[in-house]
Order: sequence, then C-alpha cells, then structure tokens
Amino acid sequence: MKSYFISFEGPDGAGKSTVLEHVVAKIAPLIKTQYLVTREPGGSQIAEKIRQIILDPDNEKISAKTEALLYAAARSQHMAETIIPALKAGKIVFSDRFVDSSLAYQGVGRNLGISAIKEINDFATSKIEPNLTIFLDIEPKVGLARIAKNRSIKVDRLDQEELVFHQKVYHGYLKLIQENPVRIKIVDAQKPLNQVVQACAKIIINSLPKELLKD
Amino acid sequence: MKSYFISFEGPDGAGKSTVLEHVVAKIAPLIKTQYLVTREPGGSQIAEKIRQIILDPDNEKISAKTEALLYAAARSQHMAETIIPALKAGKIVFSDRFVDSSLAYQGVGRNLGISAIKEINDFATSKIEPNLTIFLDIEPKVGLARIAKNRSIKVDRLDQEELVFHQKVYHGYLKLIQENPVRIKIVDAQKPLNQVVQACAKIIINSLPKELLKD
Repeated sequence: MKSYFISFEGPDGAGKSTVLEHVVAKIAPLIKTQYLVTREPGGSQIAEKIRQIILDPDNEKISAKTEALLYAAARSQHMAETIIPALKAGKIVFSDRFVDSSLAYQGVGRNLGISAIKEINDFATSKIEPNLTIFLDIEPKVGLARIAKNRSIKVDRLDQEELVFHQKVYHGYLKLIQENPVRIKIVDAQKPLNQVVQACAKIIINSLPKELLKD
Repeated sequence: MKSYFISFEGPDGAGKSTVLEHVVAKIAPLIKTQYLVTREPGGSQIAEKIRQIILDPDNEKISAKTEALLYAAARSQHMAETIIPALKAGKIVFSDRFVDSSLAYQGVGRNLGISAIKEINDFATSKIEPNLTIFLDIEPKVGLARIAKNRSIKVDRLDQEELVFHQKVYHGYLKLIQENPVRIKIVDAQKPLNQVVQACAKIIINSLPKELLKD
C-alpha cells in the first residue's frame, strides 16, 4: 500500500511543533488517506519512558554516548510500535524530529561523529528513511533568542557554551542537507508563520504521490 | 596505573552472583590493590533506571532492537561512571555480566546477529574489553531447572520456547569462546559450589599481574 513519511527538522527555536500543527491542518483536507502526527524522542509509551530518562534534570551525569544510545532505543521502539504499523497501513506519517536530529545533535554537537551515530540508527530504523524532510532554517542565535523570549529569560543570559553547541548542531544540519539534497528541503523559518506554513505545505503537496491526494 | 578487569558470564542458573561473591571473598586477602564488584544491567544510578525499563513486565512490547540498545545504553553509562574510573584508579573490577551477555542473548538468542550487537557495544565501551572472562558452564536445561527449583516452579512447566531460546544463547556463548580462546576461560558450573569457586579463584590468581598480588 502507498504510504509517505515526512520528518520536520531544525535547530531549537525554529518553531517545528507550531509549524507542523498548522501544516497538517492545511494539508488534511487535501489528502485521501489517513495520517499520523508523532514526535521524537517519544511517540510510543515505552519510548516516552526512555524520553523521561533522557530529559530528567536529575540525570545530568548521562554521558554523550549513553544519550545517543537512549535516543536510538526510543527511536527503535517508535518505529516498531508507531511508524512502521502506520506506513504499512498506507498512512502519511509526520514526525517532529527523526534520525537527522541525532546526527546533528549527537554526531556533530556532541562530537561523537556522524558515521558512528548513523550506524546505531541504521540498526534502530532498519534503514527506513523519511521520503521527505523539511528543514526549518533559522540561525542558532535567533532560535535561542526566540526560546529565551518564550521562557522570559534574558537573551544575554544564554551562556557562550550553549551558543557554540547550537552553532555546531546547525553546521551538522548543513552537512546533512549537502549530502541529501533530494530528500531534505529547506524552508526559511525566520519569515512570518503563515509564510513558513504556506512554503511547507507547497513542498509537501508537490512531493506526495498523486494517489494519496484528492482529485 | 596497573588495573585488571574480570567479567563473569554464563547461562541463566549458572550461579554467577553466588560464585562471584565467594570468589571475591577468597581472593580479597591475596591482593594488594582495591577492588570493585559490579553487575549488569545496572552498576550506576542512571544505568539502574535503564535496567528498570528493560525488566519492567509492563514493557512487554519492547522490541528486540530496543532491548539491545537499552542494554548498550546502560553499559555505556556503567563504563563512564563506574568501570572506567575504577580502572583508572588501578582497581580490580569484577563484573557480573558484560558485553558477551549481549552478544549471546541479543545477538544469537534474539537473532539480531553477533556483528550488529558488537558494533553497538564497541560504541558503548570504546572497545574496552575484560582482561579475563570466566564462563560458568552449565547446560541450559540444568540451569533453568535450578532457577525453577529456587522459585518453586515445577521444571516441566518451563515452556518449550523458553528452553529453545536458552539453548540458542548457550550456543552463542560457545561461539564466543571459540573466537576468544585466550580471554575466556571455562569453569564447569555443574560441580559443587566449593569446587567451582576454587577453580575460578585459581584461574584469576594465575592471570592477575604479579604487582597486584601480595608477596
């Protein structure tokens, strides 16, 4: 059965969750098939438990490698329980983050290397890749300033180390875009929300197999 | 600084924990340096939290790959927080299970393949291997019967599927022994406890670097 797998990627503060929500609302009336909106880390009950270990501030001693393996474990379960069954049922799957996040954040941001992280994730996903990935492009500094604003933190309190980490992640994403020019499409996320949503929707409609769209 | 890393392996019911406890008590008076006794999965606070997810009966939907990645994540944290610091401090480390367990249980028992599991664990351990591994050899059927007896379960209630799984694990171990004839030493675990402990202690004393032993 025809199915389609779309991931949304981007630096922190790119607005992935909000954009994804609006894009799905815009596209839903145009498609014939069912769809599923999911997110990582998480997307299944067991994966959410793993997510809790990763995000618990008590676990600050988690090593970079442990973190990378936990993300891969959560993804493996997300695949087995959620994504693969949906794709087998012919659904369109929208995922807020997928493997590219691990490659950019753990591979480049945490210096573990893209190829080592790719190996682990190939195991976790059995090499199932999104058909289409939308990269919401925002400069790390602008993204972090957005987050700080939402949380009422003064921008200048962001420490230098954090900014350097997010700049590395951003360069990781640029590398992935260069290596996957067909799969990954770039959308300027610094524009107003309605323009960002419009751009994403257009890319998706143009990419979806015709048999999944209403006439 | 000189250090030494010993793992204990074997099928379920081989008596690893009991034997390890007695062996350590026997060897402790003969060694000069400090030692650490640890176990897997677990051996650090975060690794114990991961262990809880693996062993929680509520999580029966955990896929084989997720399980393998969680064991590797727990091991990575066990390395970072417990084993590597102890080895750096010149201690003798005794671990109840290590990578060989994943290779035998997940690689062979769960059909994921030894090489795929080895790759993930090479990442988790940075390829740090035990200097010595003691394999407590017991036939799977005898081991399972011992466990059943301890838990007051009738042996004939063990289902066939479980026995087949444990036989595969056992054959996985035999393959590892064949491939690592210097590192892995076999001890017959079907003999009386004092003989098993005696045999293990002798192997360890003969293997430890002289500078770690009292004169």
